Amino acid sequence: MNLEIIKQISTKTNTKILFLVIDGLGGLRHPDVGMSELEAAKIPNLDRLARTGTTGLTIPVAPGITPGSGPGHLALFGYDPIQFQIGRGILEAIGLGMRIPPGGIAGRGNFCSLDGNGKIIDRRAGRLKTEENQKLIKDLSSINLKKGSVQLQSGKEHRFALVFEPEPGSTFSENITDSDPQKTGVLPNSVTPLSKDAAETADIVQDFLTKAQGILKNSESANGLLIRGFSDKPDLPSISDLYKLNSACIAAYPMYRGLAELLGMHIEQTGEDMESEIQTLKDIWDKHDFFFIHYKPTDGKGEDGDFPGKVKALEELDKLIPLLLDLDPDVMVIAGDHSTPSVLSGHSWHPVPFIIKSNISQSGDTEKFTEQESRKGALGTIKATDLMSIALAHAGKLNKFGA
Amino acid sequence: MNLEIIKQISTKTNTKILFLVIDGLGGLRHPDVGMSELEAAKIPNLDRLARTGTTGLTIPVAPGITPGSGPGHLALFGYDPIQFQIGRGILEAIGLGMRIPPGGIAGRGNFCSLDGNGKIIDRRAGRLKTEENQKLIKDLSSINLKKGSVQLQSGKEHRFALVFEPEPGSTFSENITDSDPQKTGVLPNSVTPLSKDAAETADIVQDFLTKAQGILKNSESANGLLIRGFSDKPDLPSISDLYKLNSACIAAYPMYRGLAELLGMHIEQTGEDMESEIQTLKDIWDKHDFFFIHYKPTDGKGEDGDFPGKVKALEELDKLIPLLLDLDPDVMVIAGDHSTPSVLSGHSWHPVPFIIKSNISQSGDTEKFTEQESRKGALGTIKATDLMSIALAHAGKLNKFGA
Repeated sequence: MNLEIIKQISTKTNTKILFLVIDGLGGLRHPDVGMSELEAAKIPNLDRLARTGTTGLTIPVAPGITPGSGPGHLALFGYDPIQFQIGRGILEAIGLGMRIPPGGIAGRGNFCSLDGNGKIIDRRAGRLKTEENQKLIKDLSSINLKKGSVQLQSGKEHRFALVFEPEPGSTFSENITDSDPQKTGVLPNSVTPLSKDAAETADIVQDFLTKAQGILKNSESANGLLIRGFSDKPDLPSISDLYKLNSACIAAYPMYRGLAELLGMHIEQTGEDMESEIQTLKDIWDKHDFFFIHYKPTDGKGEDGDFPGKVKALEELDKLIPLLLDLDPDVMVIAGDHSTPSVLSGHSWHPVPFIIKSNISQSGDTEKFTEQESRKGALGTIKATDLMSIALAHAGKLNKFGA
Repeated sequence: MNLEIIKQISTKTNTKILFLVIDGLGGLRHPDVGMSELEAAKIPNLDRLARTGTTGLTIPVAPGITPGSGPGHLALFGYDPIQFQIGRGILEAIGLGMRIPPGGIAGRGNFCSLDGNGKIIDRRAGRLKTEENQKLIKDLSSINLKKGSVQLQSGKEHRFALVFEPEPGSTFSENITDSDPQKTGVLPNSVTPLSKDAAETADIVQDFLTKAQGILKNSESANGLLIRGFSDKPDLPSISDLYKLNSACIAAYPMYRGLAELLGMHIEQTGEDMESEIQTLKDIWDKHDFFFIHYKPTDGKGEDGDFPGKVKALEELDKLIPLLLDLDPDVMVIAGDHSTPSVLSGHSWHPVPFIIKSNISQSGDTEKFTEQESRKGALGTIKATDLMSIALAHAGKLNKFGA
């Protein structure tokens, strides 16, 4: 939907929307079981909501397109993920829980192994141990930039992210080349500007890399580093601007908190599991009118190819649904950012079931909360980017368009 | 779908896609029979694929829009037929099996009847006999252009196509006026340039027309000619560029080979019927990863208003489906370029049933391969332009979009 129109007609009300994202919700039938994960799961609470609420399926990005987590979530909140693309460096950094300061840029890093001539032997330094990575990151954190500052954060094995923060009032440019040539047998590239205004940024980043290389040169295997995917903070209109919502994000995983922060949501401190997230939700219920709460285990089990594990993750979530309903939200949305069928051990393009429950929900012929039954819902198959407007409409938060 | 995005994420794999286009596939219920052609046909093989595969309906161009063969096929291969329009002259020429050389233009011609003053009496020369047409085309083929060369090809009755080929390294322009005023009682128009760079083309084409008129002037009834719809080869991105496919086209009719050639498919020599096409398919199966195979009789019978004929054409095709499945394609797509209901004796805008069969197909509630049952499929009603991405996704040929 056209966000300009939504912005014009959105209106502040006292109604509350609770938006539960079940990560990797959709599945496929397992050949041995003859059922999908949702079909196999005992989920009486979700089934009841599917029978009495408005159901349908969302297409995350476009037919046949498998979304990453970034595009999947952007779409659910009404942002066209093709129009609003988030750079790889930014996604990596927020996935590690880093904050992107105004004017800052982020990049993805690898520790690598270089030979005596400085040529790349192994782009992943033998997938060095995460503890070793953390030690090296500590060493590199002592580096002073020519201007501004740099934060580094270890990921798993050889991976890390880095965020360059400019001096106040100044800006770094993402228009610089990667140092990572993405192949072995060659020297790392120098970072060079891709546009005139990026010359200073390239110089500062290259100076950092030279200093970092100097620190790493005596390491045993991880004696080099490679950076790629420099990107700046995407220019996303905020949820409060677009929808006049006072929104909160409750997510155990940093990536989803980071995404929510890019959309201007208030990020709540919470624990590691869904029970903690629900406790947090209760604690802040009076303070906001839109709550994004994120459930991760379904995606993890799907990625692992663990059919019974994903079934169990759905069943465990189902037991907690009454706690969410106890809060009596005016509108409850239950959706997924994408499918993660355990038979594929990964994300997929398949349309994802959703439920919208409110006092004015229009029920269809859906008997259970499954892929197949959701198709029979009142809304049918829609673009994920349309779900947010529909949720706002159910909450009475959109005025009439035209007289 | 955005072709730029598809191009970014498409990836080369060993999987094979077999794409069967059943021309004019969709139909409507006959008032005497109470069934559509698909509903009346005994097509157990297609029905089985519909039960076990992913089904839905495609909207060829847009709701309510009846497509010609060009737009219908472009959409199936993922090209928006509104964005990519193929000129009438080009379609006529490729429909007659002509090739369009680089820099060339094509036009549609009519033999016509002129009075003593050169004014048009009959734009179709009394629909002269095709043999007479062929004789005249032979006479006209002796004409030498001022620059470049011209090929002529007879169609049926008064119709022909002509292709102007420029000298090597040079280009003809499509920006010239028609000589056909599309009315009687007036002189044929002179061909004039519509843009500065078309002046030479207009002069060469007009010179050809003057010479042709001189040759025809003593013919009995077809003593003149009229040309319209000059167009050059459309600038279509190739299937190999967009999708990284090594594609082949197997089609008995020249029009479909011509369309496929415009998309950069490899055109296979084949026979006149579906059995020959399938033999060709078997012969080349190891050489490509995408196969467009075309079945024409359904459209022909629909155009003729022959309900039982179209039913029979579907049944004959159904018997051959096992031969296609024997090749064990990773993904089998069965689709139509448009509907040709025999009750309408022509193309129509109605959504067209499709099946996608693969190891990871998501089945729905479809019991038979019919218009009504396909609506109950997992994909519902989609744009025809989305079918190609979905087929690529089923074949594992699209990477994840975003992280």
